[in-house]
Amino acid sequence: MPADGSEAISRPDESVIQDLVEELQKTFGDRISTALPTREFHARDFSFHELVPADAVVMARSTEEVVEVVKACAKRNIPIIPFGTGTSAEGHLAALHGGICLDVSEMNNVLEVNAEDMDVTVEPGVTRKQLNEYLRDTGLFFPIDPGADASIGGMASTRASGTNAVRYGTMRENVLSLEVVTSDGRVIRTARRARKSSSGYDLTKLFVGSEGTLGIVTKVTLKLFGIPEAISSAVVSFDTLKGAVDAVIASIQWGIPMARIELLDDVQMDALNKYSNLDYPVQPTLFLEFHGTDAGVKEQAERMGEVCEEYGGGNFSWTSDAEERDKLWAARHDAAYACIALRPGCAVMATDVCVPVSRLVECILETKKDIEEAGIIAPIVGHVGDGNFHVGLLIHPDTREEDLRVCIKINEKLVERAIAMDGTCTGEHGVGQGKIKYLKAEHGEALDVMRTIKVALDPQNIMNPGKMIKI
Amino acid sequence: MPADGSEAISRPDESVIQDLVEELQKTFGDRISTALPTREFHARDFSFHELVPADAVVMARSTEEVVEVVKACAKRNIPIIPFGTGTSAEGHLAALHGGICLDVSEMNNVLEVNAEDMDVTVEPGVTRKQLNEYLRDTGLFFPIDPGADASIGGMASTRASGTNAVRYGTMRENVLSLEVVTSDGRVIRTARRARKSSSGYDLTKLFVGSEGTLGIVTKVTLKLFGIPEAISSAVVSFDTLKGAVDAVIASIQWGIPMARIELLDDVQMDALNKYSNLDYPVQPTLFLEFHGTDAGVKEQAERMGEVCEEYGGGNFSWTSDAEERDKLWAARHDAAYACIALRPGCAVMATDVCVPVSRLVECILETKKDIEEAGIIAPIVGHVGDGNFHVGLLIHPDTREEDLRVCIKINEKLVERAIAMDGTCTGEHGVGQGKIKYLKAEHGEALDVMRTIKVALDPQNIMNPGKMIKI
Repeated sequence: MPADGSEAISRPDESVIQDLVEELQKTFGDRISTALPTREFHARDFSFHELVPADAVVMARSTEEVVEVVKACAKRNIPIIPFGTGTSAEGHLAALHGGICLDVSEMNNVLEVNAEDMDVTVEPGVTRKQLNEYLRDTGLFFPIDPGADASIGGMASTRASGTNAVRYGTMRENVLSLEVVTSDGRVIRTARRARKSSSGYDLTKLFVGSEGTLGIVTKVTLKLFGIPEAISSAVVSFDTLKGAVDAVIASIQWGIPMARIELLDDVQMDALNKYSNLDYPVQPTLFLEFHGTDAGVKEQAERMGEVCEEYGGGNFSWTSDAEERDKLWAARHDAAYACIALRPGCAVMATDVCVPVSRLVECILETKKDIEEAGIIAPIVGHVGDGNFHVGLLIHPDTREEDLRVCIKINEKLVERAIAMDGTCTGEHGVGQGKIKYLKAEHGEALDVMRTIKVALDPQNIMNPGKMIKI
Repeated sequence: MPADGSEAISRPDESVIQDLVEELQKTFGDRISTALPTREFHARDFSFHELVPADAVVMARSTEEVVEVVKACAKRNIPIIPFGTGTSAEGHLAALHGGICLDVSEMNNVLEVNAEDMDVTVEPGVTRKQLNEYLRDTGLFFPIDPGADASIGGMASTRASGTNAVRYGTMRENVLSLEVVTSDGRVIRTARRARKSSSGYDLTKLFVGSEGTLGIVTKVTLKLFGIPEAISSAVVSFDTLKGAVDAVIASIQWGIPMARIELLDDVQMDALNKYSNLDYPVQPTLFLEFHGTDAGVKEQAERMGEVCEEYGGGNFSWTSDAEERDKLWAARHDAAYACIALRPGCAVMATDVCVPVSRLVECILETKKDIEEAGIIAPIVGHVGDGNFHVGLLIHPDTREEDLRVCIKINEKLVERAIAMDGTCTGEHGVGQGKIKYLKAEHGEALDVMRTIKVALDPQNIMNPGKMIKI
């Protein structure tokens, strides 16, 4: 059983797997593998969850090949777990009931850029950095940045977001359409390329965030944005966490259209200073970014400076210098490494609650109390404009059982607290195995409606079973 | 059969209806009616579709009462058609298989404003103007404006949008959560109040736009926005339609964050001049609105002026004067009346395709050719930033059959054209009865997936049957 007790592990009959592998070998040749290192590589993600490899890994290069794998598996009731870059965060890749890991990382072509329509269609294995590299000369960019260089298919499947969702939205708002292979091997397109539609049920949004449990994403059409004429960044420290969050709330109400609003607590700032050899004040700190025209970002930064001063923010300094800006955001992106550096060798259990922003201070402060009481060190970073924050809980291999016991307890209390505040157990990482047990408390009877949909669209329960929705 | 041949009309047994009405009378007393004028009033919408009244109208005042109606109907296999303000546009209210019209217009309380979180929860009968009136002193507003003073429940159910979707999004982007009574009378909440979530399937987006075919909306939580510090408006005429649309495309790529970008063709401008006693040039014209800071709207307007000039826009004039601005938008909102005034007594068949904006000019020009060939007058208005436009096709009662023949043909060609351009048959009005026949062409096999969902969530087919998805 996985560490968090989500679901008992089972395996299909070896003979059925052997038969399946033999059938698929005719098409895939050496692109199908049962070698343990390959299977283990494809079961690993960014989480602390136990490694549970699939029975075989298949490397698909086209929608037709995905259909072939799905049909071969459906015929035999064998699970399929899609794989992009292995950067998911809740044990999404574990083959809890064995089966095939379907690697789409070689489906990595940018298929069509429509500059006038500001959209792009890509295969699911394209990563976000690859996409932005490709777009470089078009004046357009894809803003969603979850930190890791995740695949677009994976980001769509987990409804990912990251540091600039407050301005540009999450994958929920930015996927225009998907091509999906359903559990019985049909190929559907969830929507057309029009920006708006009132035609039929919103299948795009149903599949976005469904974590491979309803079908396999084989194409993604995304909204793009014009690269801003000017970008400026700012750092500002506050005496109190409350001051920092209140400044953000006020700025949003004032309509200052910030692109990034990141909160780092005193513990995280201390860790950052040590890891990146910096000398920021060890205080609750906001990292900010402004996008717009030259005059616009200047105005935004100045106004935000005034707001911050009102809420006890000191040393507000902003810059449009690209090098300084890159340094700042590199430090922010190093937060996870800085966290691990506090106790080298650890895996991170990153909590992921998201609450209405009016409850954020209370939620963070109560959690910090739990952390102190447990006698551990756990930095906090937050996408504070969205009410989403992560506590970096460290799990060391040498003390795994004890660490898990302590950290799971903190996370559980945190999730309960967030749900009581009308929040969610996961703002951007997804459910995977790790959050399944909280869904009933969060969704109540709506969870049964989700289960009805899962059963209707995947009656054999072969699409990434054991994740998100328990059958 | 309705005029567009969508579905044959049928009626439940009279004795079953009588039994149902008697049961409901115990709770609803004189809030249930079988009087023909009441039934007819509740079957009427803003469309040309035939009036098909329900067997009875029930006025519900609470979620519990909605549950009671749904359970009483489910027990007897009787259809339920929800009613808000009767401003839908595709025959959504027609009781094609008889049953109960469930009027929620008296469920019109604003339940909770969370100013810090910039959200509000309302009952479904609250109208958008009522909501903004209520919010007036909070500094916040709800931006979505479909023209009519529609109910929030109805707007959610049709995935409505309107003139400022280009900046603020549609109901798809602005509904945070719904309370829904399912076809078997369960009460679910589709999401919590957190701004982001990766927890479970996106039921909110599934129910938004489902037109009462999956359940009855009983509460809606909406995002709100800060009232902009400054608003300015502009009007600019172009020699060609292409110039107007190209200017819009360029402005979006430049990142000018306009709040409204409305296109009116020469025919519509002529109609407006006559109806509202104005003297605009009879040319393709953009009506624009800018929201932001004082300096921001000035900069936006000036930049847009430059862009328009580059694309042949003449006489660009902008104003921050509230009175002038109101006059401008009143004229825009009068477009439908101005259209009807061309031939008094007519109903309007408003087409509603939405295409990728790169194809918009071609789509409009080919449609204008069809209109000319048919020898009719039909003005065009468009939410050009989204690629969505409406042709006002006039149906006169005296020549209904002939008008329908001509207009349906134009609409059919237009929808085919839009779909061929990777667009949709309906950008914001919804499917109702009028667009059912186009869904197969638009969605292909995805329509079967929608049907699977409909059957799973409404196995008796009692939720607004005959609309959107044919069973």
